[in-house]
Amino acid sequence: MKHYGNRVEELKIAYIGGGSRGWAWTLMSDLARADDISGTVYLYDIDFDAAKRNEKIGNSIPHNFGYKAAETLPEALKGADFVVISILPGTFDEMESDVHWPERYGIYQSVGDTTGPGGILRAMRTVPMFETIALAIKENCPDAWVINYTNPMTLCVRTLYEVFPEVKAFGCCHEVFGTQKLLCAMLKENTGIEAERHELYTTVTGINHFTWLTAASWQGEDLFPAYARFAEKYAETGYQTGSDNWMNSHFACAHRVKIDLFRRYGAIAAAGDRHLAEFTAPRYTRDPETVRRWMFSLTPVSWRKQDLAERLRKSEALVSGKEKPDMKPSGEEGHLLMKALLGLGDLVSNVNLPNRGQIPNLPLGAVVETNARFARDRIDPLSPGPLPDSLLPLISRHAENQGNTLDAALRCDRELGFATFMNDPQLAGVSPEEGRKLFDDMLRNQRAFLPAGWGLR
Amino acid sequence: MKHYGNRVEELKIAYIGGGSRGWAWTLMSDLARADDISGTVYLYDIDFDAAKRNEKIGNSIPHNFGYKAAETLPEALKGADFVVISILPGTFDEMESDVHWPERYGIYQSVGDTTGPGGILRAMRTVPMFETIALAIKENCPDAWVINYTNPMTLCVRTLYEVFPEVKAFGCCHEVFGTQKLLCAMLKENTGIEAERHELYTTVTGINHFTWLTAASWQGEDLFPAYARFAEKYAETGYQTGSDNWMNSHFACAHRVKIDLFRRYGAIAAAGDRHLAEFTAPRYTRDPETVRRWMFSLTPVSWRKQDLAERLRKSEALVSGKEKPDMKPSGEEGHLLMKALLGLGDLVSNVNLPNRGQIPNLPLGAVVETNARFARDRIDPLSPGPLPDSLLPLISRHAENQGNTLDAALRCDRELGFATFMNDPQLAGVSPEEGRKLFDDMLRNQRAFLPAGWGLR
Amino acid sequence: MKHYGNRVEELKIAYIGGGSRGWAWTLMSDLARADDISGTVYLYDIDFDAAKRNEKIGNSIPHNFGYKAAETLPEALKGADFVVISILPGTFDEMESDVHWPERYGIYQSVGDTTGPGGILRAMRTVPMFETIALAIKENCPDAWVINYTNPMTLCVRTLYEVFPEVKAFGCCHEVFGTQKLLCAMLKENTGIEAERHELYTTVTGINHFTWLTAASWQGEDLFPAYARFAEKYAETGYQTGSDNWMNSHFACAHRVKIDLFRRYGAIAAAGDRHLAEFTAPRYTRDPETVRRWMFSLTPVSWRKQDLAERLRKSEALVSGKEKPDMKPSGEEGHLLMKALLGLGDLVSNVNLPNRGQIPNLPLGAVVETNARFARDRIDPLSPGPLPDSLLPLISRHAENQGNTLDAALRCDRELGFATFMNDPQLAGVSPEEGRKLFDDMLRNQRAFLPAGWGLR
Amino acid sequence: MKHYGNRVEELKIAYIGGGSRGWAWTLMSDLARADDISGTVYLYDIDFDAAKRNEKIGNSIPHNFGYKAAETLPEALKGADFVVISILPGTFDEMESDVHWPERYGIYQSVGDTTGPGGILRAMRTVPMFETIALAIKENCPDAWVINYTNPMTLCVRTLYEVFPEVKAFGCCHEVFGTQKLLCAMLKENTGIEAERHELYTTVTGINHFTWLTAASWQGEDLFPAYARFAEKYAETGYQTGSDNWMNSHFACAHRVKIDLFRRYGAIAAAGDRHLAEFTAPRYTRDPETVRRWMFSLTPVSWRKQDLAERLRKSEALVSGKEKPDMKPSGEEGHLLMKALLGLGDLVSNVNLPNRGQIPNLPLGAVVETNARFARDRIDPLSPGPLPDSLLPLISRHAENQGNTLDAALRCDRELGFATFMNDPQLAGVSPEEGRKLFDDMLRNQRAFLPAGWGLR
Repeated sequence: MKHYGNRVEELKIAYIGGGSRGWAWTLMSDLARADDISGTVYLYDIDFDAAKRNEKIGNSIPHNFGYKAAETLPEALKGADFVVISILPGTFDEMESDVHWPERYGIYQSVGDTTGPGGILRAMRTVPMFETIALAIKENCPDAWVINYTNPMTLCVRTLYEVFPEVKAFGCCHEVFGTQKLLCAMLKENTGIEAERHELYTTVTGINHFTWLTAASWQGEDLFPAYARFAEKYAETGYQTGSDNWMNSHFACAHRVKIDLFRRYGAIAAAGDRHLAEFTAPRYTRDPETVRRWMFSLTPVSWRKQDLAERLRKSEALVSGKEKPDMKPSGEEGHLLMKALLGLGDLVSNVNLPNRGQIPNLPLGAVVETNARFARDRIDPLSPGPLPDSLLPLISRHAENQGNTLDAALRCDRELGFATFMNDPQLAGVSPEEGRKLFDDMLRNQRAFLPAGWGLR
Repeated sequence: MKHYGNRVEELKIAYIGGGSRGWAWTLMSDLARADDISGTVYLYDIDFDAAKRNEKIGNSIPHNFGYKAAETLPEALKGADFVVISILPGTFDEMESDVHWPERYGIYQSVGDTTGPGGILRAMRTVPMFETIALAIKENCPDAWVINYTNPMTLCVRTLYEVFPEVKAFGCCHEVFGTQKLLCAMLKENTGIEAERHELYTTVTGINHFTWLTAASWQGEDLFPAYARFAEKYAETGYQTGSDNWMNSHFACAHRVKIDLFRRYGAIAAAGDRHLAEFTAPRYTRDPETVRRWMFSLTPVSWRKQDLAERLRKSEALVSGKEKPDMKPSGEEGHLLMKALLGLGDLVSNVNLPNRGQIPNLPLGAVVETNARFARDRIDPLSPGPLPDSLLPLISRHAENQGNTLDAALRCDRELGFATFMNDPQLAGVSPEEGRKLFDDMLRNQRAFLPAGWGLR
Repeated sequence: MKHYGNRVEELKIAYIGGGSRGWAWTLMSDLARADDISGTVYLYDIDFDAAKRNEKIGNSIPHNFGYKAAETLPEALKGADFVVISILPGTFDEMESDVHWPERYGIYQSVGDTTGPGGILRAMRTVPMFETIALAIKENCPDAWVINYTNPMTLCVRTLYEVFPEVKAFGCCHEVFGTQKLLCAMLKENTGIEAERHELYTTVTGINHFTWLTAASWQGEDLFPAYARFAEKYAETGYQTGSDNWMNSHFACAHRVKIDLFRRYGAIAAAGDRHLAEFTAPRYTRDPETVRRWMFSLTPVSWRKQDLAERLRKSEALVSGKEKPDMKPSGEEGHLLMKALLGLGDLVSNVNLPNRGQIPNLPLGAVVETNARFARDRIDPLSPGPLPDSLLPLISRHAENQGNTLDAALRCDRELGFATFMNDPQLAGVSPEEGRKLFDDMLRNQRAFLPAGWGLR
Repeated sequence: MKHYGNRVEELKIAYIGGGSRGWAWTLMSDLARADDISGTVYLYDIDFDAAKRNEKIGNSIPHNFGYKAAETLPEALKGADFVVISILPGTFDEMESDVHWPERYGIYQSVGDTTGPGGILRAMRTVPMFETIALAIKENCPDAWVINYTNPMTLCVRTLYEVFPEVKAFGCCHEVFGTQKLLCAMLKENTGIEAERHELYTTVTGINHFTWLTAASWQGEDLFPAYARFAEKYAETGYQTGSDNWMNSHFACAHRVKIDLFRRYGAIAAAGDRHLAEFTAPRYTRDPETVRRWMFSLTPVSWRKQDLAERLRKSEALVSGKEKPDMKPSGEEGHLLMKALLGLGDLVSNVNLPNRGQIPNLPLGAVVETNARFARDRIDPLSPGPLPDSLLPLISRHAENQGNTLDAALRCDRELGFATFMNDPQLAGVSPEEGRKLFDDMLRNQRAFLPAGWGLR
C-alpha cells in the first residue's frame, strides 16, 4: 500500500469466505463509499465459483477497488494489508444439527452459533479451520490486520491468537449497535429528539453476544435513569416498533429479556434477546411457549436454507446484470476501522480482543468485548474496569468454558469437550447419559468437517 | 495458658453454641482423651439453660477440662486461647423454609444449608450473627484461634475475616474424611488391605462441600487407576455397604453422583453426594424420582426436628445421670488441630481458609478448602496449584456468588441478594417472577432473625 | 450547576491551595477563556490573606467566573462540583531539607519532590494533609471531581483513594506534554513540518514522572524510527534549542538521559531528565560533575525561594492593579478536562488514576499514568497492556515502594518508613548507619508538619 | 524401578556432571547409607575420563548402588527414574571473568554465580546448556524427577520448565540449612539446649540465595524475639564461632549482613552473607574495606582453581585406592527427597519450584523457594502467602530481571541482555558507557561457551 497524505492506495485486502452472498456485498458497498482508499480485494472461498461470481459483481460497481477471485489461500493472503474473515463453517446441514438436534432433549436454541450445545459443537469444527487460517496468515502476511466476522466470534479470534500470538486480529460485531439504537429510540420516545447511535457515550464490557453497557450518556445526560423507567414501562408488554415486530421476524425481539436482565443486574445487556437468552440459565428458553412469552424467536435453520436459496437467486441476477447491487450504507463499521488503522481518522468502537487487563477479573488472554481506540496501526482497548460483582459469575463461567472449548477443539479431546458441554448452563436439566449421547451424536453429525484426531472418519 | 514441656495447662476455650446436644458432647469426649492439655471450656449459648446443662454433663466426666456456662458472650471470650463456633442459626422452622419452601417451584434440596436457595437464605441470617461474633472476638480475644463448624462454612469463615481481618480463624469439616474412607474401602475390596484414612496422601482443592481430590496415593501407589475401575464398576449400581445403606439413612449415599463427576472431570469429588448434587446444575435433583435413581436422600427437616427431640431426651438423661456420655473417639480432628497449634505435634489436614494464593485461579480472599500444615501458632496451606481447567467454571461461579452473598447479607442489599439467588444453578429453571416471589417469601419466613436493615420487622 | 444545552452555569469550583502565586493565576487565565462554563471559584488556603489577594486578582479579570476566598475548608468544599488541589506541603525550608540534606551523604537530587529521599520524606508530611482533605471531601462534596496537581503526585492521588475509596479523583501532570513537544521539534527538524503535540498519537504508560511512550505516530507515520535516528544523533551532544538551553535554566535539559534510556529500553521516557534521573540507579546523579555531563540541572531550593519572592512582588502588583494578569493560554489541560467531564466534548489525555487493570503487571490500586478518555462524568483509561519486560523491574519496585511509603505515612511507622527509604535506588551507596541517621534527621527537620504519631513534637 | 513394600530396587539415576570431584562423592556417600533403595547411577560428563574415574571410585564402595560412566547424554538419561544435574558451566576461567572483571569498574562480588554481573553473564552460557538438557530429558525420560544443584539455581530450574513445561524438576540448595543451624546455635547460646535444624519449624519464602524466614519456632516457642535480641547483641561485633571464623574461610561469615537485614525488614534472611550482599544495593560491597567491615569474604576464583587442583589430587588417590572415600553423612537432603518421591516417607523441606500461587505477589512461573511437602511422585509447595510489603520491591525486581535474563539467553538478545544487566542493583553506580563495555567484554570472555546466535564465534 502507499500513503499519499490523506489517501491510501494500492491496498491489498484478502477476503476469506469471499464467495458469500451477503457480507461480501456489504463490504463492496461500504468500500465503494470510502473514497480515500483504493486497491484490490482478493476473494478466496472453498467454493471458487462463488468467489468468481463475486469478482464479477464487485467489478461491475464502478469504484476505487478491484476484485479478484483467488484460487488458493496463499494467493489471497500473500502481502495482504488486511484480511477479512467471514466464513460459514460447514453447511447449513451441520448447523441444523447444532440448532435442532438438542431439541430432542428439550433444549431450544434461538441462534445456536455462539454458546450452548450448538455454539460448542460449531466451535469443534470452526477452531481447526481458524488454526489453518492463522498458520497461513503467519506464513503469508504476518503484519496484516485481520478482521473476523465469523461466529463463534470469541473462539475464532482466540484461536488466531493461540496459534499465532503475534497476529493483529480483532473481531467486529454489530449487536452492540442494536442496543445503542434502542437507546436512541427510547430517547426519541421520551423527548422527541432524534440522536444517532454514535453520538452516545457508552461503556462496553463483557464477551461477544453477552456484552453489557455499564454507562451510557447523550450530550452530558446519563441515560440510565431513563432506561430504568423505560424498563419498568415495557417489562410486561415488551417494546416494539412497527418495522421490527418480533412476530414477523426471525431476528427481532421485544427486548423483554434485556429488560429483565437490567432489572436484575442494573446494567444494560447489549445484544439481541435471542443471543442473551442463550447465555443465561435456560429460563427464557424452557420451551417454545416460554420463548413466545418472552417475545423473541427461535430462528429455524430451515429459514436460513430458504434465505440462502433467495440469495443464490439474487447472486445470479447480480452476475447477469439483471439486478444492481444495493449501494446503501450498511451500518457496519469494518471499513471505518480499516481507515482508522491506516491513520485516516481515529475512532472509538466496540471490538473483540484478547484481555490484556481491560477486564481484570476475567482471565488474561480470554477474548473480551470492550470499546477500543483505533488509530494508525494501533488498537488500544478502553479499560472498563472489573465486571460488576453480580454479573461476574454469569460471565466468568462462559469465559472459562470457552478456553476449555478451544483446548478440546485443538486437541480433539473428547473428554474435555464433553465436560465443557455439560458445564454449559443450557444443559442444566439434561442427565449425564442423555448428555453423553447428545454430544456424541452432534459430533458425528458434523464428522465431515472434523479433523482426523476425533477418530470419526 | 501455660506451657510445660510437652504439656499445656490452663487453656481457656470459648464454645459459642455451647448448649448444643451434639457437637458439644463430641468435643467433651475428644478433649477427655487429650491428656496433654487441660483447662476450662466456657459454654456460651443464647439458650443459657442448655449451656448450664452441658456444664453439668461436661463436669460429670472426670478429666482434664472443667466446664462453665457463660452468661454473656464477652465472659466466654475474654482472654480465650481458642474459640469454637458451632451454632444453629435460627431454628429448624427457618431451616424448614430454607429446605422445603423452594419445592413449590420444583427445587429439591438434599441438605439446604450450604448453597442453593436454602444456603443463600441461611447465609442472610447467619452472616450478621458472625459479624457480631467477629466484633466480640476482636474486642475480647483478638489473638485466639477460632475454629468454625457452622454452615454455610465458607461464608461463616469469610465473614469473620471480612469484619476482623486479623482474626486467626479456620473452618473444619469432615466431609473430605468420608471420601478418604471410601478410598480405604475401595482399597480393601481390591486388595484385602485395611488402611486408615490418615495413611492416604491426598491433594485437596476447592470450596467446602464441593471439595476435590486431584491426587491420592497409599504407600507409594497411585489410587486413581483403581478408582477409575471402581467408578466403572459401580457407575450404575452405586457402591454401598451394609452399614450405611443410603435407603436406610438420611445422610448416606451410594456415591453415584461422586462417580458420575469423576467420569466427567477426572478428579474425585470429596463430599457426600447430598452436598455435591446441590452445587452442580439441577440434573441430580430434578425431582424426587431422579434423586432416588441417583441413590441419595433429600434430608427432610421434619427428621431433624424429630432427632432434636431425641437429643433433648438424651440431654435430660445425661444431666440426671441416667445415661453416661459416650466416650468413643469421634473421628473429628478439632482437638488435634488445637494441639498442633499449641506446638504439640505438627499435622497436615484439610481446612477452610482465605485464599492467599493456594488456588491461584480463584479470587484472593475467597475462602477455599485445601490441605494445610498446622504447627505452633501457624497454619500454612499446601498449594494444590490452579484448579483443573474443566472444573474451574463449576467452582469459580460459586466462589464469586459467595462473595456477593456476603456483601448482600452485610449490607441488607435486596437487589444484590436477589441477583445472586438467581445466579445459583439450582434456580436455572425458575422464571424471574417466580424467583422474585420465592426470594421474598423465604426472606420473610426468617424475618425474626434478620437485621433491621432489611425492613422486614 | 446547571446545564443549558452546550453551556454549564453556576459551577462551584473549590481550589485548595488557592492562595498560590502561580497555578492559581494559570487557572484564572484558562477559565477566562472557557466561555461555555461559568460559576464561582472558592479559594481556600492556610494563608487566608493570600487567598484573599487572589480573590481580588481573580475578580479583576472581567469574565465568567467569580472568585471568593473561603475561611474554612468545609466552606470551600460544600457542594462543590470540582475540587482543585495544588498546595505546597510545608514551606521551602522543609523542601530545602528534602533536597539538600542528602547531599551530606553524596546524594544529589535534581528535583527532590517525587521519589528518592526527598520525595519519600515529602510524602511523610503530605500524605496526612491529603488524608484530611479526603475526609473533608467525603463529608462535603462526595460527588465532586477532584483534580490534583500536588507532588508527590502518585501518593497524593493514592491517599485520596485509600482514605475515601469512592472519591472521583485524578492527577494531572504536564511532563508528558514536554516530551510530546520534543517529538514535534524532532519532526520539524526532520521534515520542516510544524505539528502540534495534540496531533500526535501516543501510548502512555508508567507512573508519574517516570512515564513512557511505547508508541507514537503522527498522521499515520510511526515516529519511533525517526526518534531512534534522533537519539543516535544527539546521544553525545544532547539536543537543545536556543530558548530552553539547559545551562540557562533550572528546569530545562538536553534530553541526554531520555535518549540514554531509549537506547537501553526501546521506549521513550516521557518526563524531563531531572525527573527521570531520580528514578533510576544513581548513575546520572553520582555527583554534580556527572549531572553536568548529562546536561541537566540540580534545581536548588534557594532558587525556589528567590523565585517565590519575585512572585510575591508580582502578587502585590496584581492586587494593586500595577500589573495586569497574564492571560495567555497556559498549555495546561485542567479546564479542558473539566469541560469534558461536564459533557462538553470528549477528550483523550494522560492522567494519573488507580490501576484497575490498565497496566496488568503493576499492582491493582497503585496509581499509574496512562491515557484516558474523558467524557460526561466518566474517565475510562486506555489500556496500554503490560509494561515491556525490560522496563518492568525499574517501575514495579517504585510502585511497590510507593505503597509502602503510603502505609508508613498513614501509620507513622518509622520502621517501615526507614526500610522503604533504604529500598530507594538513590540510597544504593549509603551504609545502614548513615541511612538511619539521614532518615531520622530528615524526619526531624520537618517535624512541625508531621502528625503527633511520629513522637517528634 | 521396582517397589517391594518399603524398598525400591533397580532404580536408574542419571547424574549429569557426574565427573565432579565434590558433589558426586557426596551423593555416593549419602546413597550408600540409604539402604532401602538400590540401583545404578549413570555418570555423564563432558569429561568422560572424569566420569570413568568416578565410576571406579563409586564401585569401590561396597553398597547398594552400582556406578557406570555413560558415553552419551541419551545413554545416561534413557528410562532414568531420577536425573541429578550438577555441572560447572564452562571453566573457572569463565568464572574468573564473571567474578573479577567487574572489579575494573568498582564492582566487588563475593560469589558471582547467582545474580549481579557475574550471575547474569554466567546465565548467558548456562541457560543454553539447560535448554539442551531439557530437550534430552523430554526425549529420553519425560517422567523422571529432575534435581538440580547447579547455579544460577533459579534460572537453571526455570529454563527446564520453559523448554519442557511438563518436566518434574526442582532445585535443592543448602543455604537455608545454614541459617537454621544458626538459629540452633543461638538457641544453645541462650538456653544450653542442643536442637537439630530439622526440629525447627520455619516458614520459607523468596528466591534462591535471597530466601527469608518469616516465622521460626522450636517446640512451640517463637524464635523471633530471641533472634531480635541476638541481632542487637551481635549487630556490631558479628557472630562467629571458633570453627568457622570468617577470616579463615572463603565461605564463612559473621552474619552482620543477615542481622542488618533483619533489623530493617523484620524477617530472617536465610542464606550466607556472601549471597545476601549480592542481591541488595551495593552498600555491603562498595569496596574490599567495606566487605571486611561487614565481616564476610570475597571468594577469589584463584582459590577455586587451587581447591580444584587439590580435589584432582584426591581423585587420583581415591581411584588408586590410596585414600578411601569419606563416608560421613553430608547433611544434604537429595537422597531423602528421592526417597520421599518414591513413597518411602513424607518430608517437608525448602525447594525451588515455579510459582503456582505459593507467593501470590511474585509472577506466576517465576522460580521461587519455599517449603514443600514431598510424597510419592508429588511435591506440594506450602503457601507462605504474599511476601511482606517492605521486602517485596527488593525481591520482585530480581524475579522480573531473572525472567528477562532467561529470555535474553534463549534468544541471544544482546539489547535485552544489556538492559537487564544495567537493571541489576550492583550496576547502580556504573555509567551507561562503562556498563556497555563491561557487558560486551564479559560476553566475549566466555564466547567459547555461547551459542552461535550471539555472533561472537
